[in-house]
Amino acid sequence: MASIAMDSSSSSSSLYPPPAVPMKLYIENREKLLKHLRQNLYSSSRSLHGFVLLQGGEEQTRYCTDHEDIFRQESYFAYLFGVREPGFYGAIDVDTGKSILFAPRLPAEYAVWMGEIKSLSYFEETYMVSKAYYTDEITQALNNQYQGSGKPLLFLLHGLNTDSKNFSKPAEFKGIEDFETDLKTLHPILTECRVLKTKLELAVIQYANDISSEAHVEVMRKIKPGMKEYQLESIFLHHTYFYGSCRHCSYTCICATGDNSSVLHYGHAAAPNDRTLQDGDMALLDMGAEFFFYGSDITCSFPVNGKFTSNQRLVYNAVLDAHDAVISSMKPGVNWVDMHKLAEKIILQMLKKGSLLVGDVDEMMVERLGSVFMPHGLGHLMGLDTHDPGGYLQGAERPKEPGLRSLRTSRDLLDGMVITVEPGCYFIDALLVPAMESPKTSKFFNCEVIAKFRGFGGVRIESDLYVTGDGCVNMTKVPRKIEDVEAVMGGAPWPIKKSIDENYENGGTMVCSLMVYGCVDNSGIPSHKVGCSNPGISRLDLA
Amino acid sequence: MASIAMDSSSSSSSLYPPPAVPMKLYIENREKLLKHLRQNLYSSSRSLHGFVLLQGGEEQTRYCTDHEDIFRQESYFAYLFGVREPGFYGAIDVDTGKSILFAPRLPAEYAVWMGEIKSLSYFEETYMVSKAYYTDEITQALNNQYQGSGKPLLFLLHGLNTDSKNFSKPAEFKGIEDFETDLKTLHPILTECRVLKTKLELAVIQYANDISSEAHVEVMRKIKPGMKEYQLESIFLHHTYFYGSCRHCSYTCICATGDNSSVLHYGHAAAPNDRTLQDGDMALLDMGAEFFFYGSDITCSFPVNGKFTSNQRLVYNAVLDAHDAVISSMKPGVNWVDMHKLAEKIILQMLKKGSLLVGDVDEMMVERLGSVFMPHGLGHLMGLDTHDPGGYLQGAERPKEPGLRSLRTSRDLLDGMVITVEPGCYFIDALLVPAMESPKTSKFFNCEVIAKFRGFGGVRIESDLYVTGDGCVNMTKVPRKIEDVEAVMGGAPWPIKKSIDENYENGGTMVCSLMVYGCVDNSGIPSHKVGCSNPGISRLDLA
Repeated sequence: MASIAMDSSSSSSSLYPPPAVPMKLYIENREKLLKHLRQNLYSSSRSLHGFVLLQGGEEQTRYCTDHEDIFRQESYFAYLFGVREPGFYGAIDVDTGKSILFAPRLPAEYAVWMGEIKSLSYFEETYMVSKAYYTDEITQALNNQYQGSGKPLLFLLHGLNTDSKNFSKPAEFKGIEDFETDLKTLHPILTECRVLKTKLELAVIQYANDISSEAHVEVMRKIKPGMKEYQLESIFLHHTYFYGSCRHCSYTCICATGDNSSVLHYGHAAAPNDRTLQDGDMALLDMGAEFFFYGSDITCSFPVNGKFTSNQRLVYNAVLDAHDAVISSMKPGVNWVDMHKLAEKIILQMLKKGSLLVGDVDEMMVERLGSVFMPHGLGHLMGLDTHDPGGYLQGAERPKEPGLRSLRTSRDLLDGMVITVEPGCYFIDALLVPAMESPKTSKFFNCEVIAKFRGFGGVRIESDLYVTGDGCVNMTKVPRKIEDVEAVMGGAPWPIKKSIDENYENGGTMVCSLMVYGCVDNSGIPSHKVGCSNPGISRLDLA
Repeated sequence: MASIAMDSSSSSSSLYPPPAVPMKLYIENREKLLKHLRQNLYSSSRSLHGFVLLQGGEEQTRYCTDHEDIFRQESYFAYLFGVREPGFYGAIDVDTGKSILFAPRLPAEYAVWMGEIKSLSYFEETYMVSKAYYTDEITQALNNQYQGSGKPLLFLLHGLNTDSKNFSKPAEFKGIEDFETDLKTLHPILTECRVLKTKLELAVIQYANDISSEAHVEVMRKIKPGMKEYQLESIFLHHTYFYGSCRHCSYTCICATGDNSSVLHYGHAAAPNDRTLQDGDMALLDMGAEFFFYGSDITCSFPVNGKFTSNQRLVYNAVLDAHDAVISSMKPGVNWVDMHKLAEKIILQMLKKGSLLVGDVDEMMVERLGSVFMPHGLGHLMGLDTHDPGGYLQGAERPKEPGLRSLRTSRDLLDGMVITVEPGCYFIDALLVPAMESPKTSKFFNCEVIAKFRGFGGVRIESDLYVTGDGCVNMTKVPRKIEDVEAVMGGAPWPIKKSIDENYENGGTMVCSLMVYGCVDNSGIPSHKVGCSNPGISRLDLA
């Protein structure tokens, strides 16, 4: 077979080279934890002596073999220490605030096989901690450092991840029996620190969003019928790694086309993005790169051939309206369950307008009809983990109703949260058929029109938002309006050039579309070819 | 900063679309196991009743989160059943030869989140097994199937992986106490089946080699000073995934430049391919894609700027001569330790010729001086795992001498083995300095000349070979000769067009350079633009 000229090029980026991330980020994270931990201890009249002690991740081999996947640091450990190597421990002295890293003592042959054996002072300097020791010195070093009386107290990490239902693993080491341990105090405090992002964390998440946004646009430009779904994944991965240095993705890429786009977590090993794209398909691409441990989570939906049909328009605009309405309503104090319901309601209204549904929308809401079309939650906290912890505070119960029970948080929004807004509308037979047959909900369906949407798949539109003091800022910069999507897919530049006035009309929060860390122009006026950053998150934050 | 036009394009491939892999491959693997297991049982006068029972891999979450890396099947299970989904068990009835898959019983919501719930008959048809049940039916199904008397006997997988020192995990399930179990018989027999590849296995490994070879050439064409090492990795990954559908790599990409190329397993999280390429550097790129579970393992070494210096030529040709000499000597019965020593000797001879070493090469061999420059083993078995099991038969001891003790096998070659040939020559201070100071070896070093090579890094040349009845065939198709490497890096096409006579001069085993499964011309005459396959491994084998 002759050579097939299939264009896989990804020829430029305005985001290269990626910025360096200062260790100040992790210092600030430690200071923040210390502040809240000390407050907690003080307010419960406890001693301010003791150590926070975390165990970093270990390298794992696959089954019985010596195959090792690329190590990725445990997120709580990454949050406090930013260490990229496996086998570390880290401590913070609650009394003095001093930070200590414990590095594995490596055998001499490590230098031959794995690279230079770094000195303890290298780790002190690189990770900007007060002191570094070896992991076999934990007991001695902490005892020497300890200023209090009796056995030193260790605050260990133990708590429930409400998404996985797994518990974090408290640090273990030889000699731990010589310490008092506290498994209760640390987890909720540290988790809440992670919920509210610092400016430096926002800057890193913004870069992950920028490079991922640009990669989504790259895919939009290259997609065409006849390609395989995995080729879209490959373009995305290449763009974010080649230009953005992002070796990890936040999660497995979902590259769903046609009916696959109604499978919420498509793309895993049992459904591995292996379909051939057909003319007329919708594509639903949910992909986000990770930058210095911090993630992004972005979904774009568009027709494979670049032109929306009227049915595709109908569903797409229903979801886009929900997406935009939620973003317009978001600010501190707003409850996330209410936002979910708002999205549901708008989608139901639009489906009624499009004659797929009939009847009273409020009545549909009472019957939870929204969950038939959007069975997942509206969005989730995001940061070092795609599903960042802290969605349910200790003791908080999940809602039980269909749709709402899938919410990964039911909290009120707070200034500093980063949360995804990802309404969707899917035609899933496993949900649609029972609902159309149920005596409670059958009356709402216009079966004749609905029939035309069976096999349509679904649409999801997902952006990453950070909550400010009085609203929110969209960190995701991809074409959303149908005319913009079609223009970019047809070859128009992105961001689409508009007059300054038009940009300011956009609420003033999202000045332009691609953040560039090299850009010192923070005035809000887009310069030629490159966009500027979101206000408040600039190159300066990462300098 | 303005948009940087850095060419990351990967604009075509002669290997797209990738071939389908027939389930016949796994049927043959099962038949092969059955034959050898029955022979073993018969020769030890044991009953031919019982079942081989293997447990497939399970999906894992990362730390306490719900993050799941892309599932990759356990290799022994993949060998017998080719199942890509997690959570399966598989059995083979020793008596009848019937094969049974046990699929996890999935909850209804799987259809919403993960995709269609496949029927048992789907798995029977897809994986071409005699029968499929659910995993909660193992006890009942095996008892019903059993033809012998007493409790049915299960042959479970339990044995040492001599590379990782880990043991494979025998299948566990509820009700196993109702069976007799045998932990000893299966592992050595099944492992030896994996050591000797079938034609279909070779065809799959050949495709993994072909797409990886092409991707290496792609990197050679794009590399230039100023790039980052990870960008080379990104180009490789993109090419093998976009055109070859290879979602997994056989191992973490080693993209080492400059002095990093003396770090044998560079590229891991603590040394993550993040250096900037300098003019004058050597690059050592060890990268291989995995295709339908089967791997490739290829190293290319070349100057980043495309032109070898005289010092680079010297070291490169020393390694290439060793590589070629070993390949010329390989055939059934040849011992791998001898091949390792042959490679060492040639490298030492060349270093002496280049005035880095002085004295008698045989004496150097006695003092194991080769291990200073090549501390790793010459090569390893390769297949479903990069370091395929079976390198040391039960009871076999590893050599103890420097260099030789790193060998992953000390066996005699057998027709059907696939083994890497990967000699290297590195300037590693941690080894060089002690050897130059040792009273036994200091006399061999010409310190003045050696000094010029400190910081050079290293060269490795690695190909995947399969052993035939009377020699071996190189499955790796990349430019090796210095003039070919420089030509391809300068833009010449690859494979470089040569006359038919020239091709035949090449021993007749390696007819041309890129195998194409669409090519029906198996005559050995390269057609325009596309190469042909290795003789005996063609499209037909995969049809």
